[in-house]
Amino acid sequence: MQAVMPAPARAREAWIDAALNPRSIAIIGASDNPDKIGGRPIKYMLQHKYAGALYPVNAAREQVQGIRAWPDIAALPETPDMALVCVPGAAALEAVTQCSQRGVKVCIVISSGFGETGAEGLAVQRRMAEVAAASGMRLVGPNSQGLASFDSNALATFATLLGEVPPQDGPVAIASQSGAMSMVPYALLLAQGIGVRYAFATGNEADLTVADFACAAAEDPAVRLILLYLEDLVDPDTLTEAARLARQRGIPMLALKAGVSDRGQAAALSHTGAVATEDKVLDAWFRQNGILRVAEMRSLVQGARLLLKPRRLKGRRVAVLSNSGAACVMGADAAERHGLDVPPLPDDVRQTIAKLLPNFASAQNPIDLTAALLTNNRFFGDVLPHLAGDCCDALFISLPMSGQGYDAEQFARDTAAFQADSGKPVVLACPLRRTREVFESHGVVAYEHDEDAMAALGQLAAVSALQSEAGRLAEAGSRARHPAGVPAETTRFLSEADSLEQLEAIGIPTAPWRLCKTDEDVRLAMRTLALPVVIKACSADIPHKSEYGLVKLGIGDADEACAIAGEMRATCGRLGKSLDGIIVASMVRGRRELLIGARWDEKFGSVLLVGDGGKYVEAMPDAVTLVQPFDLSHVLRQLRTLRLAPLFKETRGDPPLPVEALARLAVVVGNWVQAENGRIISVDINPLMAQPHGGLVAADALVEINGRQ
Amino acid sequence: MQAVMPAPARAREAWIDAALNPRSIAIIGASDNPDKIGGRPIKYMLQHKYAGALYPVNAAREQVQGIRAWPDIAALPETPDMALVCVPGAAALEAVTQCSQRGVKVCIVISSGFGETGAEGLAVQRRMAEVAAASGMRLVGPNSQGLASFDSNALATFATLLGEVPPQDGPVAIASQSGAMSMVPYALLLAQGIGVRYAFATGNEADLTVADFACAAAEDPAVRLILLYLEDLVDPDTLTEAARLARQRGIPMLALKAGVSDRGQAAALSHTGAVATEDKVLDAWFRQNGILRVAEMRSLVQGARLLLKPRRLKGRRVAVLSNSGAACVMGADAAERHGLDVPPLPDDVRQTIAKLLPNFASAQNPIDLTAALLTNNRFFGDVLPHLAGDCCDALFISLPMSGQGYDAEQFARDTAAFQADSGKPVVLACPLRRTREVFESHGVVAYEHDEDAMAALGQLAAVSALQSEAGRLAEAGSRARHPAGVPAETTRFLSEADSLEQLEAIGIPTAPWRLCKTDEDVRLAMRTLALPVVIKACSADIPHKSEYGLVKLGIGDADEACAIAGEMRATCGRLGKSLDGIIVASMVRGRRELLIGARWDEKFGSVLLVGDGGKYVEAMPDAVTLVQPFDLSHVLRQLRTLRLAPLFKETRGDPPLPVEALARLAVVVGNWVQAENGRIISVDINPLMAQPHGGLVAADALVEINGRQ
Repeated sequence: MQAVMPAPARAREAWIDAALNPRSIAIIGASDNPDKIGGRPIKYMLQHKYAGALYPVNAAREQVQGIRAWPDIAALPETPDMALVCVPGAAALEAVTQCSQRGVKVCIVISSGFGETGAEGLAVQRRMAEVAAASGMRLVGPNSQGLASFDSNALATFATLLGEVPPQDGPVAIASQSGAMSMVPYALLLAQGIGVRYAFATGNEADLTVADFACAAAEDPAVRLILLYLEDLVDPDTLTEAARLARQRGIPMLALKAGVSDRGQAAALSHTGAVATEDKVLDAWFRQNGILRVAEMRSLVQGARLLLKPRRLKGRRVAVLSNSGAACVMGADAAERHGLDVPPLPDDVRQTIAKLLPNFASAQNPIDLTAALLTNNRFFGDVLPHLAGDCCDALFISLPMSGQGYDAEQFARDTAAFQADSGKPVVLACPLRRTREVFESHGVVAYEHDEDAMAALGQLAAVSALQSEAGRLAEAGSRARHPAGVPAETTRFLSEADSLEQLEAIGIPTAPWRLCKTDEDVRLAMRTLALPVVIKACSADIPHKSEYGLVKLGIGDADEACAIAGEMRATCGRLGKSLDGIIVASMVRGRRELLIGARWDEKFGSVLLVGDGGKYVEAMPDAVTLVQPFDLSHVLRQLRTLRLAPLFKETRGDPPLPVEALARLAVVVGNWVQAENGRIISVDINPLMAQPHGGLVAADALVEINGRQ
Repeated sequence: MQAVMPAPARAREAWIDAALNPRSIAIIGASDNPDKIGGRPIKYMLQHKYAGALYPVNAAREQVQGIRAWPDIAALPETPDMALVCVPGAAALEAVTQCSQRGVKVCIVISSGFGETGAEGLAVQRRMAEVAAASGMRLVGPNSQGLASFDSNALATFATLLGEVPPQDGPVAIASQSGAMSMVPYALLLAQGIGVRYAFATGNEADLTVADFACAAAEDPAVRLILLYLEDLVDPDTLTEAARLARQRGIPMLALKAGVSDRGQAAALSHTGAVATEDKVLDAWFRQNGILRVAEMRSLVQGARLLLKPRRLKGRRVAVLSNSGAACVMGADAAERHGLDVPPLPDDVRQTIAKLLPNFASAQNPIDLTAALLTNNRFFGDVLPHLAGDCCDALFISLPMSGQGYDAEQFARDTAAFQADSGKPVVLACPLRRTREVFESHGVVAYEHDEDAMAALGQLAAVSALQSEAGRLAEAGSRARHPAGVPAETTRFLSEADSLEQLEAIGIPTAPWRLCKTDEDVRLAMRTLALPVVIKACSADIPHKSEYGLVKLGIGDADEACAIAGEMRATCGRLGKSLDGIIVASMVRGRRELLIGARWDEKFGSVLLVGDGGKYVEAMPDAVTLVQPFDLSHVLRQLRTLRLAPLFKETRGDPPLPVEALARLAVVVGNWVQAENGRIISVDINPLMAQPHGGLVAADALVEINGRQ
């Protein structure tokens, strides 16, 4: 098995140091104009006092922006760790070649007009990558905005926002395929007072990818939050490794994968030439790797202040506290929106708190301190310690009324003490900046809007749960990496009989069936199988046989069966299709038609689809998508998110649907496709009949394999 | 018919002037301490120069906060328009009584401890309302934070936020059952630079409600946006009138109805004693009245800047423009999230724009101006005029990269010109404050986050569509107001035979059936009905007969039918239930089981439920809820939002489900329940069989009526 393993750590380190902390940088196409693309990196580095050596390369000038310029790479007094290529077209390839020859470690091609423009540009881009690979030089771009490292102030980027928002080093690393989206989170984080250590823009990713930089960031002890922007998931294995590193260090990793809507996906195709992957597969992949996927930019940055705190949520139980009954109501609503619970407090806790409050009702969860907070500045200090026990996992405080008359300082001190003593995450929401600042000064994360505060708590809970489950899956699940995919140039369907046999071999129960070559076979089948039966033409040439009238249900009579078999033979003859025989199968009674599907994805390996089955699975889908690694417990957890899930319990007198059996068979099918390593292209078991008294039986199956007959 | 009509406009005006623009205000329980509840209103009005007469009432003092105090209401030199009651318990009722006797027009009871505390407090609260009603005085509260009018600076409120956020008069009116939630939007709007004219807090609503104040606001020509916070919809008819007034003036009305989650609803019950109404009924009610319901506070205020512009969206087509390809991708995703379309541009427009851009792909919609914007400050001016035609309804601009080098001033001028010339709404998103300020100075609404900008556009589109549909419904639909509900103290179910006859009488097709008293009747039925049949016990005592084994399907033989009928008679005898006879009905073949339900709601009249039917309608609901007024076109529009909707077109060889027939029958049933005016309590037609070749047939029905047998 050709496992694609991440590059060994030692090999990676070489480029990481040169990319993140270069001792020397050459700028090829350096401009004296500090606003031009070849001028900005120099301006930024001079302005922010990059400590390494800067080598502007410009054959036409002695000096660039006041420092010595050099005619070409060969003329430099030392080999720079990093080179920035700002010259266009053929000159860019020439510059990459010279850098490679000179032994540059990391070459960033800022210039655009390559892979993103079509086949011709892509060919040049590929040549760049080959030239770089020949000497072991790593390539960023082309069409990259560059790399910004605020630790060393190696600002090898032309990002305009750098000129507007002065850098502040901090614990966040941003890696983005888009230049703009490497800097927008930078600006939004700095506006919140959060420092950023790295902003990486990888552009066309001819060599190094967002995943490589995510790995590099995850290994940096100063980084405590990693934010990614992606339009295409190029190398999932490397990102799996980055996610593993982040998980081990307890660092949240969030990803904004754009191009979800049809129009967005179309725009992504024209923007970066991203390859469309079914969005649910990506959802599953991020989830199973413990990466929190977010839908848009605000969600990518808004939870940062809370996510940067060392505290993690152990569960989803939130205590909601406010001095407004309305904020209590809305807090409970918001918790539900963000996947959190607001459970009633245990009786003893409630009774204790009730003694402190104006009326008993307000000692529920949410806890309504009422306007009495105005006259009692000890309320927080009195109430909060009672929430330190195992009654909640986090605390949400909303103070819609504050300001003059309220002792915010005391409340904040008491809240900070609770936070420190209980170890539970706390967020505050308050429309008044002054009050927020008091809480922030005591280390309590504060938001203007309740919704943002609860969303942050929801993200923290999600990250905690995702990372824990991803860790479990990585330990327990299949550790096999999928092979470098052999492209399935020719695939073919197996006949139903062959498909059923394949599935029986891996332990999937099927409805009793016979493949009948002759009328005598049909009569024998009618004598030995439970009646009524279904009669189907068995032909590898006709995967969707019902469309040709080649499926007949509810046959109980042998003569009728033979007549139907005869008609089907005639139909196949007329259609010019091969016929392996006639399948006669007992009709299984089903209280519900379910579905298990699996397919081989060259990038992700075995992709599993499990859920409601029947005729309308495309029109009204209700299925979960999973990628490797998955196991029984993970599949079960996902199945419980189905619309169908209420039927996993007794419903209107019907016994529970056998969800455990469904999950178990799904894992069997998924692991089979994974183990077959690209030989099985797809499996479709629909309907998988849930029988009235439990048990699952495949009533039809279609297997597609790689290669010719 | 006892129609609850809104109070005549003239009668309302009297209290409106006194509430919104009082010439004189008495404060009963006035405090010299400007931070106490009885002191703050005086402080605020002195501070912000309320021009009317202020009469502090405090028998113990000569002066309060430097102005003359009066011993009691009777002693005042004139009858004040408004009185504020800040004294507790019995003294509050006494104060209300004195105000009423003196002829005060509006009395605001700030004091709490009444309806919200239980039966005893509720009794006192009711007494207050009676006392007020006796003299025609209108009551606000009790348990109200008060009314703030920033036009006259009649700040009859103790809101703390007023001391923190100095008022600024403007075009927004806020009406809220919660005091805190009257001031939080105030603070959030002012932080955005948007002025507020009114902040009304209605508290326990013993008399005047949020709906009354919404009416008052809708009649104020200076108000151009109305925001509501509700935990309970007390008087839908008055709010219908407010919505109508707002719609006529083209003023958006947004409502935050909290208590959606189970825990939130529980909290609302304990907070204000709100009565739980099924949330989907409220959703329908808001929608059908053209009021945009939002889920949380940020959504209530975030779109205000755009909603305050006079422009409305004619459709949902948005042109997305950016200088970043990634922002284009995300813009398309965001549009979908907010219910907007990003349609491809017409060929001629695209070709014209393509000539202006670096490559053709970027002239799609989204339109990617690319980094070339940096070097061409005429881009906006060149491109935008081509979007003025019928190719889009609004423009969304995202500028993730801006600042030095970009000619924001020119872009903003060109955008403002487009906005003025085309009449199309425009929003800008940019992370850089400086750039946003340039656009804002030219009258272009700008947001920090793309998501907020698109959400605002989505709200504008939703408001435009809702108001237009509500106007159409109000014109075309049933204008009958439902009566003051007669409480249905005793209800009973009709037998299936009686239920089916009721439905047949209004034109609902039913499966052929006979009510059989004897075995001979059964045999006759078996001879005359299409076989097989279903056999059911017919008893008004047993509405859910299948639970007792009193439904048998697929019977084709007369002897068997008689035997089953005998068993059913025996079962009913054993159960001690009455039996009207045995129903024998042809089994209708159904390709899908559908559902029409309707019920009588004392507050909302006829409430309709239409959608997917069968056994699992509670476990896996897929139905739309509608309230009066509804018509065929509105029901159809809502049905198209069902999960089931794809089956309204041909699917996998199956003909379309008859959605028009379904909508038509639903309107018939809904109008019947409305017309019966409380005599029909509920109707449940499930399954309503969609037959293989079109047509709908009720296979079972259950009607519940008001009153005893």
